[in-house]
Amino acid sequence: MILEQFDESAAEKADAAMVVAPPSNFGMVDTGVYRSGFPDPASFGFLRGLGLRSVVYLCPEPYMETNAEFLKAEGIRLFQFGIEGNKHRTGCLVGCFRKLQNWCLSSVFEEYHRYAAGKSRLSDLKFIESFDVNCMTDCLLRLIYHYHGCLQKSKRLAYSER
Amino acid sequence: MILEQFDESAAEKADAAMVVAPPSNFGMVDTGVYRSGFPDPASFGFLRGLGLRSVVYLCPEPYMETNAEFLKAEGIRLFQFGIEGNKHRTGCLVGCFRKLQNWCLSSVFEEYHRYAAGKSRLSDLKFIESFDVNCMTDCLLRLIYHYHGCLQKSKRLAYSER
Repeated sequence: MILEQFDESAAEKADAAMVVAPPSNFGMVDTGVYRSGFPDPASFGFLRGLGLRSVVYLCPEPYMETNAEFLKAEGIRLFQFGIEGNKHRTGCLVGCFRKLQNWCLSSVFEEYHRYAAGKSRLSDLKFIESFDVNCMTDCLLRLIYHYHGCLQKSKRLAYSER
Repeated sequence: MILEQFDESAAEKADAAMVVAPPSNFGMVDTGVYRSGFPDPASFGFLRGLGLRSVVYLCPEPYMETNAEFLKAEGIRLFQFGIEGNKHRTGCLVGCFRKLQNWCLSSVFEEYHRYAAGKSRLSDLKFIESFDVNCMTDCLLRLIYHYHGCLQKSKRLAYSER
């Protein structure tokens, strides 16, 4: 009996050790794309399991040393695009991404509110609404043309014909 | 100029036709697994794009005819598990799934609240908290054993040793 109790206790300890803590406001945006608040070390174990290749950091402040070390150890690249102002930054970025995916605006806003909760801002909604998807699509096409065109001249003609 | 205006108008119409409307409370639970409120025909176009193979319907009421026809036309199988009572059913199911994924309870509850919004219920949280993951894991192992064991006798011994 004592052996059984010991086994159960060991199993419980093993289970407790397996528990993972996603960062605050964590969610899956699309296959292989996730969103979250700024993660603290408690969620490093969970993040490790996601097999991330890059992290996009949207604040203008320098990235925290502890987190930078974690990314380095895991071979994850950091991209910083510091957005100034009092914004729900991740919500704005995901909102613009949803517009690129052709989501109707009411669904984009519903998702924004779900993650922003009490921090919803009218200025963010206006920003998302005014985000010009066609302009972004053109920029992306230009980038593809630029890098692809350097390699294959025939593609330049294909783009000009568009 | 009139030609340009016509072109722009045609382009806008084409864009508008491409706009998709996800169902209410839509979200990605994991790769290939989605959650949402009950979808109306406006979101059928969006759902078509997800390439669904099955839908799990958690209400005890009969499934709506229009939606059943859509599923049939798309070759999507319907599984109904009618859960009685005043519950945020999808939130409870996803909560139990997160426990299977070893999420800590505070993260499970945070996600529950995000989707339940004003409809959060203490009884749901108690249900998720008391959900016995070990029991569920054992059930799954028994099922795997049952179906796999019928094919390979050696696996039965492996399971007994566990």
